[in-house]
Amino acid sequence: MDQDELLFAEEEETDSAKEVTIEQDPWVVLIVDDEKQIHQVTKMVLQDFEFDGKKLEFHSAYSALEAKQLLKQQPNASLVLLDVVMEQDDAGLQIVKYIREELNNQAIRIILRTGQPGQAPERTVIMDYDINDYKEKTELTTQKLFTTVVTALRSYRDIKTIEKSRSGLEEIIKSSASLFELQSMKKFASGVLTQMTSIVNLHKNALHCSFAVTKGVEDIYILAASGDYASNQDERARDVVPADVLEEIEHAFHSKKSSFASDRFVIYFQSKMGMENVIYMNGFKALSEWEHYLVDIYCANVSVAFENIYLNEELESTQQEIIYTMGEITETRSKETGHHVKRVAEYSRLLAIKYGLSEQEAEVIRLASPMHDVGKVGIPDAILNKPGSLTSEEFDVMKTHSNLGYEMLKHSNKQVLNAAAIIAQQHHERYDGTGYPQGLRGDEIHLYGRITALADVFDALCSDRVYKKAWELDRVMDLLKTERGRHFDPVIVDLFIKHLDEFLVIKEFYKEQR
Amino acid sequence: MDQDELLFAEEEETDSAKEVTIEQDPWVVLIVDDEKQIHQVTKMVLQDFEFDGKKLEFHSAYSALEAKQLLKQQPNASLVLLDVVMEQDDAGLQIVKYIREELNNQAIRIILRTGQPGQAPERTVIMDYDINDYKEKTELTTQKLFTTVVTALRSYRDIKTIEKSRSGLEEIIKSSASLFELQSMKKFASGVLTQMTSIVNLHKNALHCSFAVTKGVEDIYILAASGDYASNQDERARDVVPADVLEEIEHAFHSKKSSFASDRFVIYFQSKMGMENVIYMNGFKALSEWEHYLVDIYCANVSVAFENIYLNEELESTQQEIIYTMGEITETRSKETGHHVKRVAEYSRLLAIKYGLSEQEAEVIRLASPMHDVGKVGIPDAILNKPGSLTSEEFDVMKTHSNLGYEMLKHSNKQVLNAAAIIAQQHHERYDGTGYPQGLRGDEIHLYGRITALADVFDALCSDRVYKKAWELDRVMDLLKTERGRHFDPVIVDLFIKHLDEFLVIKEFYKEQR
Repeated sequence: MDQDELLFAEEEETDSAKEVTIEQDPWVVLIVDDEKQIHQVTKMVLQDFEFDGKKLEFHSAYSALEAKQLLKQQPNASLVLLDVVMEQDDAGLQIVKYIREELNNQAIRIILRTGQPGQAPERTVIMDYDINDYKEKTELTTQKLFTTVVTALRSYRDIKTIEKSRSGLEEIIKSSASLFELQSMKKFASGVLTQMTSIVNLHKNALHCSFAVTKGVEDIYILAASGDYASNQDERARDVVPADVLEEIEHAFHSKKSSFASDRFVIYFQSKMGMENVIYMNGFKALSEWEHYLVDIYCANVSVAFENIYLNEELESTQQEIIYTMGEITETRSKETGHHVKRVAEYSRLLAIKYGLSEQEAEVIRLASPMHDVGKVGIPDAILNKPGSLTSEEFDVMKTHSNLGYEMLKHSNKQVLNAAAIIAQQHHERYDGTGYPQGLRGDEIHLYGRITALADVFDALCSDRVYKKAWELDRVMDLLKTERGRHFDPVIVDLFIKHLDEFLVIKEFYKEQR
Repeated sequence: MDQDELLFAEEEETDSAKEVTIEQDPWVVLIVDDEKQIHQVTKMVLQDFEFDGKKLEFHSAYSALEAKQLLKQQPNASLVLLDVVMEQDDAGLQIVKYIREELNNQAIRIILRTGQPGQAPERTVIMDYDINDYKEKTELTTQKLFTTVVTALRSYRDIKTIEKSRSGLEEIIKSSASLFELQSMKKFASGVLTQMTSIVNLHKNALHCSFAVTKGVEDIYILAASGDYASNQDERARDVVPADVLEEIEHAFHSKKSSFASDRFVIYFQSKMGMENVIYMNGFKALSEWEHYLVDIYCANVSVAFENIYLNEELESTQQEIIYTMGEITETRSKETGHHVKRVAEYSRLLAIKYGLSEQEAEVIRLASPMHDVGKVGIPDAILNKPGSLTSEEFDVMKTHSNLGYEMLKHSNKQVLNAAAIIAQQHHERYDGTGYPQGLRGDEIHLYGRITALADVFDALCSDRVYKKAWELDRVMDLLKTERGRHFDPVIVDLFIKHLDEFLVIKEFYKEQR
């Protein structure tokens, strides 16, 4: 029985020992005076002084010159007890100006102590200099010194508290620009964790673990993670998250509510479109009321930013699907099915990147290239789907699909549709000038046309069509080499050959089901 | 000659008189003491007092009870000179707690003045109560009172300055959520002006004029305006903006730089996509360094938000054009040209709104409806473009376009494409069950199908086709009434008739060129 009680007591001790003891930094007090005795007496009188649970730490300077150095070494000093007459009659007053104007330190409290009030009359000095108290050394009893130091430290603490809260707000504002950039959801979630950590641990350093998790239709996935869980991105929450944490996360999804505990919080968001997210963080000391407030206002921003990114991703992927659908509709009619347009899109994008175009322009080509054959909807069935080879007249009709496509697409001033119009018109031009419809040659053919020409032919050769079986890769590559500088731009053929492995990854990814 | 000089002098006077003279509010000082004499002496001693260009305004309370009322009446008081022993021995100390804890006022400075130090020993009181100075009345000379009031007001001013800057930051953060919402560019620009005005005039009220202007290819247009220019939205800048202001705006576009003057600023932005904007504001007093800083950090956010909205608008309008292009491609093949798909889109959207659907859902219908006939690309030319009427067998083939379209569109999980698949399949169903392909009846037909059915038929009847001329409106309306409850949902016919004028606006706007 006794042993039981003891154990219990021990457990409690272990538990409380876990709490991080934060070393309280002392108040840094600077004594500036050319009389050594003043330093000694001041320290003696204030040796047991404690305010707000913190002791004093003294630093001495014996001249204005030393004082300036000391002020630079101790930027966090709370208080300076400052003599007036030192190497010059107004040395102390000059230090006041130096502190407020040159160092631009408005927080440090300045108590002027003078033995020769004639040199610095109280009424003038108190008005003209930004000091916080004025004492004649002769009137300064132990009690008066004590009182002025306490009130000075109290003001300093108040000012620092507001300054700290101000810097928390500045941090949030500065983070807004990156927070609100339209970026991938994962990059966003991971940026939020970093910023949140910085807000919560603004003035201390603690380990933390955090997740931004998202709820799919059936399960909870980790979008981003930091601290102890940094390696768990993309995992299913229940595979990697400890049971107690998982329970809190699930509870947040279930109750649709955020909750704050002393050493952790779980924040729940729901986008207007209904997508749900939770941020979980722990491992810090209890949040102050102010930090809680900061987290709250930060999260209001996160919620809007999240919605933006979600809407943007939806819009982009919808646009892409519409384009693929349009491409596929064209192919449907000419009895070509499957992933042809998707592969042409990805080959074209990759070629653009390898050619040195920007990600942004490569993306335009990726979106535009699937529309290269839209003109075929204007070609009569009898020609489009003729089993045998076309007569010369029939082929002339077939060739009109390039200009037909161009006519359908040219009316827009949108970048994607402009590119699509160019590609529709020029994807049958040949580098040596023997193509159609315009017989352009070399660089007369727009780069987009030259890129899509190769992507389209490569994919056609590698695929089954109604009139032929798919060619073996070797045979296709031989043809590309033969047509280097004839059908195709030699630079683009070379890039294709050099990075063939990457193109084959796309080919494999969008393989047809047979 | 004399007269010339006089005139010049007068002009200068007029000019300087224009500057707003800001009434400097005095420092509010509360005297709390149960001895009348103390009030009189205090006021007398401090009657000529001035600090930072501001005089004192005294308010008196003669008991703790009165003090509490006074504190509530004077929330902006800077300083309270507080007696300790009044109706109770510790009445003053209770007031200290009341101020700091109940009123939660940390800024007001408290100077304790006591005639009976035995009741409130200095050492204990200064530590235990959040006061800013402690004076025994017996030691309080004129000079000492003067000094403690100056230092107290100085601290109060410092604290208020930081608090003011903090509230400026809070304002910016709170504005972020609405700033970054994806909204129309105009709503955004006008919101920016409002927020900016509030930042700049945070603590004063001034008239202002402002523009957010945008540069088109050839000219500068006003996106939003407030103050004196509020009515000038959408105008060309050079038609309405005074020459000097226009010059500054043009200079900002030309130099691609922002500039700040004492009473106005011009902020230049360029989006990553190259779109340029300028915000011009004037009419306020010179910005403090801090306000300038606030404007700067606010504008960094504006720049990102602007980019987001621009990208989003581009994406949305590109998507819309792609959809129209797709719809038109289908129509091209069946030799129907022009704005048919655009009108069907707008009619369908308006019907959805009138039916009571949300803006968001109506927008989905607007985007989806132009794809209703994509299945026609799978119909042979001979049937699709047959000049005469179709045989029963041919009509059976023709009818397959509904399901063909559905098959092309059904593979997506995107809202727009889902809706398009439904519309493609059901736009030839009839309310009485006599339609195709499924012969659905009444509410079995999806609302999207019922809406598009009417929009499509109405537009077809009102348009020239290869096989018919456009009908007169009366004849079309007669048919709609006849088919109410037969071909069409009666509710939708009624809504259409009730709001016919609005539908005719669309018809007129997308009129065919003949």
